[in-house]
Amino acid sequence: MSNLADDIKDMARRAKKAARTLVSLSTEAKNNVLLHMADTIDAKRAFIQSENQKDLTAGREKGLSAAMLDRLELSDTVIDSMMNGLREVTALTDPVGAIDNMAKRPNGLMVGRMRIPLGVIGMIYESRPNVTVDAAALCLKAGNAIVLRGGSEAIHSNMALAAVLQEALQSQGITADAIQVIPVTDREAVNVMLAQEEYLDLIIPRGGEGLIRFVSETSRIPVLKHYKGVCHIYVDKDADLAKATPIIINSKAQRPGVCNALEGVLIHKDIAEEYLPELFAALSSEGVTLLGCKESVRIVSDITPAMESDWGTEFLDLRLVVKVVEDIEEAFSYIDEYGSQHTDNIITENYTTAQRFVAEVDASAVMVNASTRFNDGGQLGLGAEIGISTTKLHAYGPMGLEELTTKKFIVYGQGQVRV
Amino acid sequence: MSNLADDIKDMARRAKKAARTLVSLSTEAKNNVLLHMADTIDAKRAFIQSENQKDLTAGREKGLSAAMLDRLELSDTVIDSMMNGLREVTALTDPVGAIDNMAKRPNGLMVGRMRIPLGVIGMIYESRPNVTVDAAALCLKAGNAIVLRGGSEAIHSNMALAAVLQEALQSQGITADAIQVIPVTDREAVNVMLAQEEYLDLIIPRGGEGLIRFVSETSRIPVLKHYKGVCHIYVDKDADLAKATPIIINSKAQRPGVCNALEGVLIHKDIAEEYLPELFAALSSEGVTLLGCKESVRIVSDITPAMESDWGTEFLDLRLVVKVVEDIEEAFSYIDEYGSQHTDNIITENYTTAQRFVAEVDASAVMVNASTRFNDGGQLGLGAEIGISTTKLHAYGPMGLEELTTKKFIVYGQGQVRV
Repeated sequence: MSNLADDIKDMARRAKKAARTLVSLSTEAKNNVLLHMADTIDAKRAFIQSENQKDLTAGREKGLSAAMLDRLELSDTVIDSMMNGLREVTALTDPVGAIDNMAKRPNGLMVGRMRIPLGVIGMIYESRPNVTVDAAALCLKAGNAIVLRGGSEAIHSNMALAAVLQEALQSQGITADAIQVIPVTDREAVNVMLAQEEYLDLIIPRGGEGLIRFVSETSRIPVLKHYKGVCHIYVDKDADLAKATPIIINSKAQRPGVCNALEGVLIHKDIAEEYLPELFAALSSEGVTLLGCKESVRIVSDITPAMESDWGTEFLDLRLVVKVVEDIEEAFSYIDEYGSQHTDNIITENYTTAQRFVAEVDASAVMVNASTRFNDGGQLGLGAEIGISTTKLHAYGPMGLEELTTKKFIVYGQGQVRV
Repeated sequence: MSNLADDIKDMARRAKKAARTLVSLSTEAKNNVLLHMADTIDAKRAFIQSENQKDLTAGREKGLSAAMLDRLELSDTVIDSMMNGLREVTALTDPVGAIDNMAKRPNGLMVGRMRIPLGVIGMIYESRPNVTVDAAALCLKAGNAIVLRGGSEAIHSNMALAAVLQEALQSQGITADAIQVIPVTDREAVNVMLAQEEYLDLIIPRGGEGLIRFVSETSRIPVLKHYKGVCHIYVDKDADLAKATPIIINSKAQRPGVCNALEGVLIHKDIAEEYLPELFAALSSEGVTLLGCKESVRIVSDITPAMESDWGTEFLDLRLVVKVVEDIEEAFSYIDEYGSQHTDNIITENYTTAQRFVAEVDASAVMVNASTRFNDGGQLGLGAEIGISTTKLHAYGPMGLEELTTKKFIVYGQGQVRV
């Protein structure tokens, strides 16, 4: 145990030292190493897959579900996709060094704000080993070192991928300490990692709500996370119902198990009698089960009455709650109470109602006449994402390269002193 | 104790509810209430000063120093300055509602990022009661509610100011819950406050290093803080020495007790023989005591040899360490080891050296040929500041109105679904 603590502390310390050297790497040098990583993964495909087999064998012995084993497998397709991911990151604009708001003060000082790397990112994640490569690539492009702690199911795969990435780093003259995977997967390793506030600048946890809550409650280091995505659509009385139905179906049914999938629909009372039967029929034919408030069950008796515990639940399957509301105020109150500040959308053709909803709803993404599934870094134009934050500090919503940086003040003087 | 916890939780809960109403206040409404606050403070001057007298009397009985009593006093001048502060905040640009980076995605979605208030700010501070008014004004202008917990020395003054501000809020139809002062000043109140992560979005502590460390280690809510300001100036071999001396004197001696005062000077070895005697003489005549490395003592034997513990110390008085360094690399290593990521400056006429220093030094403000005393929100053009952050997440450096907000994604669609 004391050895484990020392080892992890030493990794964190070396990561911080590595980060110091990454600050001044040129964009060209960073892109070269990313391309080289892709090539090295290709060259080491057999090694990576044989290590991955160890995880798959152990997973089968442990009785992991077929879905879990599928997420764990580094098939040729998954490896190709990791390589493509690395090459795509080279095309993203390097945020480091950009200077905003440079302006002259009355005393002649030129003051601006320069984007700089955060330093060292700690990533804590479960299963899917391709996260190791995706996260390392984004952190490196933004000039950060990364310390990764994956799940026990993927330990051989993660260690193999780290070894390959480190080989690529070193062949380009960059220290291997820039990308490190902690070789121990028990929770004690997480505890030790979360206490390295001297060396780590940010923790990003990805996984189930339990893991994220544990990380968030234990960490001495700032954490960017979302617990869950309880996303809503409010169908306003002035909605174009021909837009509403496809948007609701897409939001709920396209991929029900993800955080930006829809969990609740609110319908204005003036259109409920007309629209609910149509919506119920359309959703039923997609296999979606509606759980409704009393009023909605009165309108469509086939709707299952919702239990109190259904409101605000992240189902992650084809269940969906529906509630008839008096007005936009009741929609706001409902979203405040049951939402998770992830994604909340309105369907309306009314200009003023749309602008009010956008301005007043407190969520990382607020949308008009669009599917909740668009709350995703790629879809919103960030190029790639390392996670979604429902914390308001630093980043709110999908986090791309820019969210892996911060800004410092820079000042060009000509000898000024303060009077 | 259980009553105290319930009371503080209730205050936090009400603050969050108040914050919901502040989001949609117009800039005009916010400015009107700020002006009204200034007028109400003026009208209630006698009441404020008689409550302040209770703190001053108690302070004298407790044997507070003259400097402490001075900081505590709400003289006519201090009250006028609080009123001016309120009026000045009306002139600052309201950051809420500004939309950045609005752009069209290939599928026609319009995606942008809208500035929104953070929600509820918790402020924990010591003595100076005018912070109550300054902080409340900035938080309100940025659309946030605030819960303040001041020190025991200023409790009557803080409660009086809060009552006056709340009266002004209510007269303008805004809930008094937008600005609340916790009436209990023991540490247990801080503990309870720091556990209200359900209601508070950000904690800003202001005070001594002990208080800030305690807050930072206890809080479950994100904290923006700086522990101390150990600021450096590196005098490069290509420095214009006629600029260096006035900048060093201003940085150290203009106001030695503040966080942006200078604590260490690094001098390139090539100019040390020439410059150190001159610098020693100039600083001595300002009453500054130099504590030096071996090499500097060899050059100027009147320099006091520094003890190991002097390096990296925030003296907050007229002591200053000086060290002769081999080159800019040694300056970087020294600043990495002994700096506090607050303010680090270079004196040089060399273009490449200046750019390298600006790009590579990790501090909230990095300056060329200027006094460290410029690291201040007012001086850097923020208009006002609520504190300085040496944490990299969210804000790095002085925090103004913009740092009291965050950005959410907003999306205008025309019926798009994800394919």
